[in-house]
Amino acid sequence: MKKLNIVLSGLLVASVGFAGENLMMKAKNAGLKPIPQSKLKLLKLVDDPANPMTDAKIELGKKLYFDPRLSKSGIISCNTCHNLGLGGVDGISAAIGHKWTANPHHLNSPTVYNSVLNSAQFWDGRAAHLEDQAQGPMQAAPEMASPAKSVANKVKSIPKYVNEFKKAYGENVKITFKLIADTIGVFERTLITPSRYDDFLNGHPNALTKTEKEGLNLFIDKGCASCHNNIGVGGTMQPFEVANKYKFENVGDFKGNKNGMVKTPTLRNIEETAPYFHNGMVWSLKEAVKDMGSIQLGLKINDEEAGKIATFLKALTGKKPNITYPQLPASTSKTQKPDMN
Amino acid sequence: MKKLNIVLSGLLVASVGFAGENLMMKAKNAGLKPIPQSKLKLLKLVDDPANPMTDAKIELGKKLYFDPRLSKSGIISCNTCHNLGLGGVDGISAAIGHKWTANPHHLNSPTVYNSVLNSAQFWDGRAAHLEDQAQGPMQAAPEMASPAKSVANKVKSIPKYVNEFKKAYGENVKITFKLIADTIGVFERTLITPSRYDDFLNGHPNALTKTEKEGLNLFIDKGCASCHNNIGVGGTMQPFEVANKYKFENVGDFKGNKNGMVKTPTLRNIEETAPYFHNGMVWSLKEAVKDMGSIQLGLKINDEEAGKIATFLKALTGKKPNITYPQLPASTSKTQKPDMN
Repeated sequence: MKKLNIVLSGLLVASVGFAGENLMMKAKNAGLKPIPQSKLKLLKLVDDPANPMTDAKIELGKKLYFDPRLSKSGIISCNTCHNLGLGGVDGISAAIGHKWTANPHHLNSPTVYNSVLNSAQFWDGRAAHLEDQAQGPMQAAPEMASPAKSVANKVKSIPKYVNEFKKAYGENVKITFKLIADTIGVFERTLITPSRYDDFLNGHPNALTKTEKEGLNLFIDKGCASCHNNIGVGGTMQPFEVANKYKFENVGDFKGNKNGMVKTPTLRNIEETAPYFHNGMVWSLKEAVKDMGSIQLGLKINDEEAGKIATFLKALTGKKPNITYPQLPASTSKTQKPDMN
Repeated sequence: MKKLNIVLSGLLVASVGFAGENLMMKAKNAGLKPIPQSKLKLLKLVDDPANPMTDAKIELGKKLYFDPRLSKSGIISCNTCHNLGLGGVDGISAAIGHKWTANPHHLNSPTVYNSVLNSAQFWDGRAAHLEDQAQGPMQAAPEMASPAKSVANKVKSIPKYVNEFKKAYGENVKITFKLIADTIGVFERTLITPSRYDDFLNGHPNALTKTEKEGLNLFIDKGCASCHNNIGVGGTMQPFEVANKYKFENVGDFKGNKNGMVKTPTLRNIEETAPYFHNGMVWSLKEAVKDMGSIQLGLKINDEEAGKIATFLKALTGKKPNITYPQLPASTSKTQKPDMN
């Protein structure tokens, strides 16, 4: 009897393992791909050959990312809306910026984590790269409200920043608004969060629990992976309201890009990035899963299925890079004063 | 000749060294004290026996300090106005809080660094301890605008926070608003920034440059140290406008506590904490030094003297503790939603 038990449990393990491997193949066939384990492959994936990563650029980019003085008021940084302690978001429906102005289209701040994996940036995909994206909110009146020239002048007025730019780009560096945004982009490219889901796809069938595997299986079978795929588990431009209208379609005036396409959010760290959808009107992950079934796939995902899919999605919560909070160089008498108006 | 030079330079070194030691004694006699070098002495200085520091409390306090969800809007944390990357301040004249409301008394946010060394908290000294202080801005309508009960309920709705409270205070912990503020206080007690000035007072005469020593000497001779003394180089309640009126006295309605006393700011990291004075109307450190000579001491500090004193004051810029940006536990369906109104 003891022996039989051992044999049976051996068979069970083998069968779970086999199921795991089957599911792994199924996921790969559905277009799901892990964050590479190899550091070299990862670097190749996230680095921009036009402005290759160095420690000096990353560290400087981090400072700029956290520096509220880049805003007109001096109190709003990139990290205000893309908070690295809160899944890379602000946790509110529509972003709030300068003078407490809500995003005029009632748009929700997307996460900065893994955003380098997106094929385009912004909900309407209007920026091709993180570097282009970073230029937007700094200047936008309802966000950081700082003209490009102000941002560059502020940075140039701080000798320690100038030195760091020299260290990063050489003695003859010309500090421009574009280079500031590019440097922030370099830092953002490092914000990758590998998860148990990646371990699973990288060949560790036991990295996911039984329910998570069932959730992943449903995620593929229901068709979620037809938009949420590739390494980003999202991040590409897709049509919206394919089968049905979104119940909060009238909140804000966002209708996608000129072709009606919307950037599918990454589902990585989705557990941490409520509220959901472009206008941030849905707070429950399970509800969001059901809504997407109806809106995009024209099918009813029942409560149990949505629960399992949500359980799987929580396995996408990744390990965040360790970030030492930066000490920002002091302003000088030449630094433009904050303006709250 | 060569020998004479050597002898002379030896004498010069000895004389500078001697001057350094004399100045050290003079500084101590003027009531200036260093941050202790001994970790045990430092701990004794900053720890509160009523709620002794532990790693678990410090780490939890740090999370709460950085968590904007403690505010009504969900986007303002302690760190918004007391930014640990910016000398522990916001760098604006009057604090801006919920709904972009300026501090109604036009009060400037004091630094959190070394604030445990203050004999009282707030500009009017109305809080005796950091823990009492922390309760204020969280609830104040123009700051974080969050009723005490809301703050406690938000924290209690997040199981990972509950676990951390259990780890810090034991299984039977009752999470109250007071305990949340107390835990933030524990973290704030660790924010001590030793500087070259402390090295000097701790027996290293060459830790300050010649000009810095001249500045320190003037700082004592002019009488600055009569208010800015002890370990905090400030932080006690003192009369204001002793000799003359402050030129911006009409900006805001702050007139000190009921006895007209004002908390003297710490001068530690003063280089990083412009703008100066209770209503943040002066941006230049040199100008602030001159103003204080006139307002408090009834004497004219000339440009050269003010320059030397400012140079000395920059030697008070201290080494900040290394802070890993915290990963905050995710909200749940029970967590009260942010309210921007």
